[in-house]
Amino acid sequence: MEKIAPDRFLVREGRKVRLDEWPTRIPDFYSSKGEYREMLKKHVEELSELQRIHYADNSYSVLLIFQAMDAAGKDSVIRHVMSGINPQGCQVYSFKHPSAKELDHDFLWRANIALPERGRIGIFNRSYYEEVLVVRVHPEILMSQHIPEDLLNGHDVWAGRFRSINNMEHHLYHNGTRIVKFFLHLSKEEQRERFLDRIDEPEKNWKFSAADVEERKHWDRYMEAYEACLGKTSTKRAPWYIVPADDKKNTRLIVSKIILDTFRSLGMSYPQTSEERRRELLEIRKALVAEREQESLK
Amino acid sequence: MEKIAPDRFLVREGRKVRLDEWPTRIPDFYSSKGEYREMLKKHVEELSELQRIHYADNSYSVLLIFQAMDAAGKDSVIRHVMSGINPQGCQVYSFKHPSAKELDHDFLWRANIALPERGRIGIFNRSYYEEVLVVRVHPEILMSQHIPEDLLNGHDVWAGRFRSINNMEHHLYHNGTRIVKFFLHLSKEEQRERFLDRIDEPEKNWKFSAADVEERKHWDRYMEAYEACLGKTSTKRAPWYIVPADDKKNTRLIVSKIILDTFRSLGMSYPQTSEERRRELLEIRKALVAEREQESLK
Repeated sequence: MEKIAPDRFLVREGRKVRLDEWPTRIPDFYSSKGEYREMLKKHVEELSELQRIHYADNSYSVLLIFQAMDAAGKDSVIRHVMSGINPQGCQVYSFKHPSAKELDHDFLWRANIALPERGRIGIFNRSYYEEVLVVRVHPEILMSQHIPEDLLNGHDVWAGRFRSINNMEHHLYHNGTRIVKFFLHLSKEEQRERFLDRIDEPEKNWKFSAADVEERKHWDRYMEAYEACLGKTSTKRAPWYIVPADDKKNTRLIVSKIILDTFRSLGMSYPQTSEERRRELLEIRKALVAEREQESLK
Repeated sequence: MEKIAPDRFLVREGRKVRLDEWPTRIPDFYSSKGEYREMLKKHVEELSELQRIHYADNSYSVLLIFQAMDAAGKDSVIRHVMSGINPQGCQVYSFKHPSAKELDHDFLWRANIALPERGRIGIFNRSYYEEVLVVRVHPEILMSQHIPEDLLNGHDVWAGRFRSINNMEHHLYHNGTRIVKFFLHLSKEEQRERFLDRIDEPEKNWKFSAADVEERKHWDRYMEAYEACLGKTSTKRAPWYIVPADDKKNTRLIVSKIILDTFRSLGMSYPQTSEERRRELLEIRKALVAEREQESLK
């Protein structure tokens, strides 16, 4: 299990990213479906236990961000890794087309509202990163965001957004939120095969939209946008991991291992009881025991 | 498994509730820990599958409300029954002391904001029902809610709140939200034993607060408030179930069975594909297959 080394997938701060140098497929970490299941189960069980402590500790938040091209497996990795976690300690937000109300705010506003509370895991299925990805590929979206013109003309909007994002993440880190970002790295060929599956299996039809194929046509420009984004916003305090996504089982093992290591690194334990509180508890204990004894005399 | 008949725990509309006529403990539905595990696992697995369809269907919402005295097992039933469900389709809200901002709104406002989206399960750990429970036991809370005086003087506040709640739930039903409400019915004696556990096991200390013992002193008045509430707000469209809670395993089996039956009754299936959409998909399919063939020629 320990052979999955997260560092291998980490984008180091300041490093330029060329996605064709990052694999979409690597040798399997499992030798059989049974072994895969066993490994994932172990990850999820430990994660579930650490999350209970995290919830009780009620000081750190953990924010997991998932970005990827369509059909890369965001939904499925969330389902497989996070089912088994107490939903009381876990909040998933899927960011879709912004509403008119959301567009009447800055581009980070709606994400801020959805940030996880202390003691909770927040999962962003897509995120404010779309603002430097889909919006960059389709600049007409930017034009519809009601941004004052003089803030667009002559400004490098993307550099500005990267700075905003890095500053926000820096702020969150220093106030107790641990951010881990996953780019599920899918090959264009594998996306095609998964689209075909979604068409061929009637139960998957609902997951497929013609718009997905439309976006596929912009594949190369998406890759460029991702490269800029990953290179500029992977920091020590909020790192990006580029996770090979052509094999879903491998993806889930890698992602769950990275999340697990994040929790382990927080070194949390159940809240300690102070001497004073201990005394208070013992007073209460005495009263409750007296009540029990009185009752048994009835 | 089918021997758990939810109707046995249902509060029929219009029926007066006397809680001492409702058991806090009934014979176990399981004969061993192993059997319990097996039963719960079956419930959760079927629930997980139905929830996937519910999510894909994206029309109904399901709202599960949990109310109970402290230590009745709300958290634990949520954890045991809902872990295993994809957190992407499940939102848990724990209602705590209202904030100043929340108090500047009517008493249903903060719950409305937290209602589950279509296709999702929403879980309220405590809820707007606290407004006719803790607030009724402690009327001084009502006085701090900034309600215009002339709306309090000479009015039956509780009858008014029951009507507001019933009307809201009626509205939600007719717009696609299925509401199921659980009162976990714990005996005063069992609460005492669980409090003692929380004091005696250091890992549970954090769950215990001296305020819990303070509330325990008002036990009888809480029961009266619950009786009024359960009798007045259990409706065909938003029923209350009174679930015996002195045995946690039984509680979980009953609750999971009731939730399961709720989902089954919705009779959902994966969204159907229309003829027109089918044709569109086949067009896309052709283009993708052509792309694959071209690639294999390279």
